[in-house]
Amino acid sequence: MKELEIIARLRDLCSVGEGVEIGIGDDAAVLSRPEGRTLVCKDMLLDGVHFKSAEVDPFWIGHKALAVNLSDIAAMGGRASSAYVGLALPRRLSDSAFLDRLYEGMGALAKRFQLTIAGGDTNIWNGPLVVSVTVIGSCHERGPVTRKGAAAGDFIFVTGPLGDSYASEHHLRFVPRLEEVKALLKRVPISSMIDVSDGLGKDLRLLASMSDLRACLYRERIPLRATLSALDRGLALERALNDGEDFELCFSLKPEDAAIVLHEAGLASFCHHIGYMAVGEGLVWDEGVRGFKVIEARGYEHQ
Amino acid sequence: MKELEIIARLRDLCSVGEGVEIGIGDDAAVLSRPEGRTLVCKDMLLDGVHFKSAEVDPFWIGHKALAVNLSDIAAMGGRASSAYVGLALPRRLSDSAFLDRLYEGMGALAKRFQLTIAGGDTNIWNGPLVVSVTVIGSCHERGPVTRKGAAAGDFIFVTGPLGDSYASEHHLRFVPRLEEVKALLKRVPISSMIDVSDGLGKDLRLLASMSDLRACLYRERIPLRATLSALDRGLALERALNDGEDFELCFSLKPEDAAIVLHEAGLASFCHHIGYMAVGEGLVWDEGVRGFKVIEARGYEHQ
Repeated sequence: MKELEIIARLRDLCSVGEGVEIGIGDDAAVLSRPEGRTLVCKDMLLDGVHFKSAEVDPFWIGHKALAVNLSDIAAMGGRASSAYVGLALPRRLSDSAFLDRLYEGMGALAKRFQLTIAGGDTNIWNGPLVVSVTVIGSCHERGPVTRKGAAAGDFIFVTGPLGDSYASEHHLRFVPRLEEVKALLKRVPISSMIDVSDGLGKDLRLLASMSDLRACLYRERIPLRATLSALDRGLALERALNDGEDFELCFSLKPEDAAIVLHEAGLASFCHHIGYMAVGEGLVWDEGVRGFKVIEARGYEHQ
Repeated sequence: MKELEIIARLRDLCSVGEGVEIGIGDDAAVLSRPEGRTLVCKDMLLDGVHFKSAEVDPFWIGHKALAVNLSDIAAMGGRASSAYVGLALPRRLSDSAFLDRLYEGMGALAKRFQLTIAGGDTNIWNGPLVVSVTVIGSCHERGPVTRKGAAAGDFIFVTGPLGDSYASEHHLRFVPRLEEVKALLKRVPISSMIDVSDGLGKDLRLLASMSDLRACLYRERIPLRATLSALDRGLALERALNDGEDFELCFSLKPEDAAIVLHEAGLASFCHHIGYMAVGEGLVWDEGVRGFKVIEARGYEHQ
């Protein structure tokens, strides 16, 4: 397909929703006046780094490209309103079947969370597939929730099991935690939050450091992906901390707010209490009477 | 450099300006409540398609990556407030000298137009360089100006000379027409507008078609880039219509508003009156007593 055909096709695929006055087809999208502060995030997926186009149904490439951005919006305590899709398509993938499937994946997720794909830019080139998505959103009343703001004594939570995201295809198929954040912020303020994309080891270390604190973890409480259950516990924990691309939220709550969350079934079901913030720095295992054990910095960096 | 080092460097390079509460360094940027409707555009530059990294100072790659987006914002009748930069860096270009220079180019332009580089995503991979920029802006009082809205009889203008953008390096170094749009909209409403990225032939054809009109052009009034002056006039016109990447604005005004523009030195200096809208379709030369001559569709598509 040529670029003009692709744009026409995308316009058909992307219906315009609330808050978007002009979507695909002009020089820029036009959004009506938003209610509160605006959130903007931008995450780019690269063939061979974040997915392998030769092995994956393009539906899930589209899904992931939008989902990683929605995960960032969730991590700020927000909801998403519109998305903008930049594509660099290798010639061999510039057919309508591939493009339709990619957009189906994005469209299904956009529909689920009621956001509009409102613009973008499509190019054909000789390089590998690049999908660069920008999402615009707004904050819930208690938002934005930044990475900074935790106090010593705050409880640390994570929204789901960690590790083995690649082999299990979780990294492609995960559902961003927008509903969970909404439910949480209805009940309590969140003192700090990040989404776990580089592994809990690296991301929680960063989260704690933003508030000049140390994160203390309970070894036995780290939720592990089921596919890790056959492994030795130590090895499984190592994987849970370092595999990366879990796209769960890691956040801190004041102890009194943590008590609320832990006693409400609707929240406790996805809020795994894994540790607490303390004076100091870095990441440690709280080993009870045996004291603390430093967790060495390692973590995940994309090749 | 590693990704975390790059992010730290970018944070140093990008100071936070008005309207941006949180810039680089969290899961998303946070913008304070904007005054009017929001504009969003996203344009991606690819090595080998929109620039050649082996031949060009990265300063101008950065400049162009931001400028093409600002040109879109200008074409909507807007001003820019913040930019978000997605980078896919090939390993050989992931050194700080390259990155600094790229950001210097973007930064200088951002400073000139008082916008903040407020976020983004940096990746290192084995593919070619990709620079994907998203810009958020707001509308001037008379905006947004869309591609649709011209009436038969409206005068057509272009903001500067056309053609030979590649050889002259204009496509890398152009200054987006934000100031010109601001000056125009202070005085008159613009009935339709587009930025000329694919060549006047293709873009004006599209602009006219959005209002179900025909665009009639005066052959002798098309402003040509100086570097085309040695060519035969017919050939030079061919180039002016089809070379592409001029990044001038092409717009239409009601005749009575056109009269205002043509009589004010501050506006007339950059408003080249090149034709008018008429009932019909397509693009034609107005050849006076000899009638009209159809300009065949051709135009530019990136290889």
